[in-house]
Amino acid sequence: MNGAESLVRTLLASGIDTCFANPGTSEMHFVAALDQVDGMRCVLGLFEGVVTGAADGYARMAGKPAATLLHLGPGLANGLANLHNAAKADTPVVNIVGDHATYHRRYDSPLTSDIETAARPFSAWVRTSAGDVAADGAAAIAAAQAGGVATLILPADTAWSPGPPVVVAPVPTPPAVDIDVAAGARALGDGPAMLLLGGKALSARGLDLAAGIAARTGARLLAETFNARMARGRNVAGIERLPYPMPLSLAALAGLRHLVLVGARAPVAFFAYPGRPSVLTEDQTVITDLAGDPLAVLERLAERVGTGDLPPPPILAPPATGAITPAALAQSIAALLPDNAIVVDEGLTAGVPVYGATTGAAPHDWLQNMGGSIGWGLPAALGAAIASPGRRVVAIQADGSGMYTLQALWTMAREACDVTVVVLANRAYAVLHHELANVGAGQAGPKAHGMISLDRPDLDWCHLARGMGVPAAAAGDMDDFNRRFAAANATPGPSLIEVRL
Amino acid sequence: MNGAESLVRTLLASGIDTCFANPGTSEMHFVAALDQVDGMRCVLGLFEGVVTGAADGYARMAGKPAATLLHLGPGLANGLANLHNAAKADTPVVNIVGDHATYHRRYDSPLTSDIETAARPFSAWVRTSAGDVAADGAAAIAAAQAGGVATLILPADTAWSPGPPVVVAPVPTPPAVDIDVAAGARALGDGPAMLLLGGKALSARGLDLAAGIAARTGARLLAETFNARMARGRNVAGIERLPYPMPLSLAALAGLRHLVLVGARAPVAFFAYPGRPSVLTEDQTVITDLAGDPLAVLERLAERVGTGDLPPPPILAPPATGAITPAALAQSIAALLPDNAIVVDEGLTAGVPVYGATTGAAPHDWLQNMGGSIGWGLPAALGAAIASPGRRVVAIQADGSGMYTLQALWTMAREACDVTVVVLANRAYAVLHHELANVGAGQAGPKAHGMISLDRPDLDWCHLARGMGVPAAAAGDMDDFNRRFAAANATPGPSLIEVRL
Repeated sequence: MNGAESLVRTLLASGIDTCFANPGTSEMHFVAALDQVDGMRCVLGLFEGVVTGAADGYARMAGKPAATLLHLGPGLANGLANLHNAAKADTPVVNIVGDHATYHRRYDSPLTSDIETAARPFSAWVRTSAGDVAADGAAAIAAAQAGGVATLILPADTAWSPGPPVVVAPVPTPPAVDIDVAAGARALGDGPAMLLLGGKALSARGLDLAAGIAARTGARLLAETFNARMARGRNVAGIERLPYPMPLSLAALAGLRHLVLVGARAPVAFFAYPGRPSVLTEDQTVITDLAGDPLAVLERLAERVGTGDLPPPPILAPPATGAITPAALAQSIAALLPDNAIVVDEGLTAGVPVYGATTGAAPHDWLQNMGGSIGWGLPAALGAAIASPGRRVVAIQADGSGMYTLQALWTMAREACDVTVVVLANRAYAVLHHELANVGAGQAGPKAHGMISLDRPDLDWCHLARGMGVPAAAAGDMDDFNRRFAAANATPGPSLIEVRL
Repeated sequence: MNGAESLVRTLLASGIDTCFANPGTSEMHFVAALDQVDGMRCVLGLFEGVVTGAADGYARMAGKPAATLLHLGPGLANGLANLHNAAKADTPVVNIVGDHATYHRRYDSPLTSDIETAARPFSAWVRTSAGDVAADGAAAIAAAQAGGVATLILPADTAWSPGPPVVVAPVPTPPAVDIDVAAGARALGDGPAMLLLGGKALSARGLDLAAGIAARTGARLLAETFNARMARGRNVAGIERLPYPMPLSLAALAGLRHLVLVGARAPVAFFAYPGRPSVLTEDQTVITDLAGDPLAVLERLAERVGTGDLPPPPILAPPATGAITPAALAQSIAALLPDNAIVVDEGLTAGVPVYGATTGAAPHDWLQNMGGSIGWGLPAALGAAIASPGRRVVAIQADGSGMYTLQALWTMAREACDVTVVVLANRAYAVLHHELANVGAGQAGPKAHGMISLDRPDLDWCHLARGMGVPAAAAGDMDDFNRRFAAANATPGPSLIEVRL
């Protein structure tokens, strides 16, 4: 047994059985070990941002980390943006990066770089193995499971040298936290107050508890703007999210005496704007952060203050007809969403209405980009599908964002993933048209317009998808969309529908 | 004048008039400044690896740096792999990265990261502007022109605050070096000896001088395996390159008493292999590194030892006919290469024969990936085309490598770049099939095979190109290829020819 095999066996013994990979020469022993050891599913991505984004989507649905396999410093670099997104989501990732053999590094051959330094800003834990790859692998798994990206750098000679005995990673125990629900109850009883939810508070049980508490206390209820995973649909209490545009987020938080956080962070602006605040709450608003496991916090808070009746779910409108608009699309997606779907939301501006429309839809999970680095959606949809056989993934994908990591489509085809990709093609970085004005830089002149518009030439997503083996069609009107969306959801494997807005 | 405008004017005043960009909210003032200031050509890439690779290709042909414009830490991260390649090529790049406003960073909003640390492994110079963006911009330009990637981080408030007066970057003077040609002459007179060329020794004048010296002294002559830019074709002395596969590179350097380096580094293995050396020269080979400007070194060496007659250029074969093979393709590309073309070589295994075949072709420049991070070819071809109006760029592109940064095709279409892309579609990371055996990991089992093969499904590059507005066709045989290649080279704008091997 060589080091590579020892590491693969350590991963498997610790429950990690899926590896997203884009390997090179220095990872060949790891790749060869896949045929020596049963049980590891290895999924090839044709670009490393696909690999790391898939690991994020996978872990959110599987409830355990995937491993990645990346090639040296530049391979890591290509994966960093989606590691950033995973890190901001507290997603566990066992991020394995091959390096040159230890004795070869000093010759500074072309692919040599300082991998540890490059990894550190985007990792909670970084280690270069000095040979005990099993112990190092187990430590990486434990670090990831404690919440975050654990980067294990594997010099090629540690992979081909004799391997140490397999180590099973310890299961981390979360630190004990005293839950102070009394403070929360006092705040909610001293309105105007708001309960702001994030993280694991957004499970079905958490949402029902929070809605009950809000109904009983009269507190307002919101979720954070971006959330790693939310339970949604007609069987769970609906919740609005703090809006993204600053005028709306300021309005949503205006007039509060108390803001009570459960699994959420105190709200701050996504970007700074000249003359606008970074902190979104008003000065007089007292913020109470209820630390501890969010579900336990809500259980205890509900015991303390009681719960009121939940409102019935909104009536779902039938699929929309006529011309394609963002609102019509949202209505049809909600009406036609398959039971137990996973919605991966990187719809940005054109996708905004889909969230509200799906509140009363079939039960589903809702995943969002937590780090703001676009190009997360298609890889995350891939990873969520790999983690969730038998469930349909619906990727609501803005066109500009989708272009960063479009290679994910190829892996969806190769792995026959049940993903329906809806590309919202407005042919612009539309959010930047707003942001140009928001930062006080005025209207776009012709050169600025050229930097934030994706026309000249128009992207054709049907061609792009077919080029990677994914069946695709453009929807001409809402009837056409409805037919194609229903058919895609009922057909095994991936499909793409381009919607030109 | 705000800071963004001050920076744009500083770039222009220092001769930098091209900016490859993928901006976001924090760069909106820079984008707006493009319409306030005449003269900056700004080129949008739909992924940051396109932006940085284009800056590399541009600077190699323009002889001066381009600026980049990237969005925060993750935008930088997406560009790092091609910055790595640029750094290894000593290509000057003024790498501008927007950041949050200084006062906003402490709120750790989703897109916050440690940009300086992420940039450092891939940059020769890093600075976060504290407000004097003109002086900082000028310092970045000077640092880049001294050879390398200079990363200037621009907090958003430095861009929107009042701008300092424009600064013109000083032109760096290279350090004076004593050229010791006597040592070189002695080594070449004490054969078996070899002259190994790299960097600026590979200009037309340098190659003619070196070939003359070799003819006179009986020394062998080679260029490094990878070179940033080589003058080539029937008007310049041809030169072989040190082969990439280790058995061949060891054989090429066997039996030498002396190795004389001009603009080159002592040869080392690209990767380590178990039981194989890292240093490619034999123990008894004495290495003499002739420091100083390579062209001046060769001039002085030629004066000292004299020059012999150059061999005539090889006779060029006519375009090949019949079935498509790598050798037939090489023959046709050589025969049909337009005058004064720029060949961007990321052909990898299937592209190997093109180099030798083009020795007697029409005069051209030859650009290679210097950092080994694949996904350089298409962006570099884009940048070379932007730098070289009136010249045809021929991109010899392996399919697996091309997938990392295929978004470059869209910018080629938007900017009407005269690029002919020849995709060598062997549907594999073919080099890894060799490397798996080379590292002693044996033959690929089915799972390993799945990680290094790109079939299931086959990529269709014609669809991919059309999806980004680039006309494309697959060549069925060599006659078909010859027709399409000649037509593409004669048609303004980009075209893609897929060759299935």
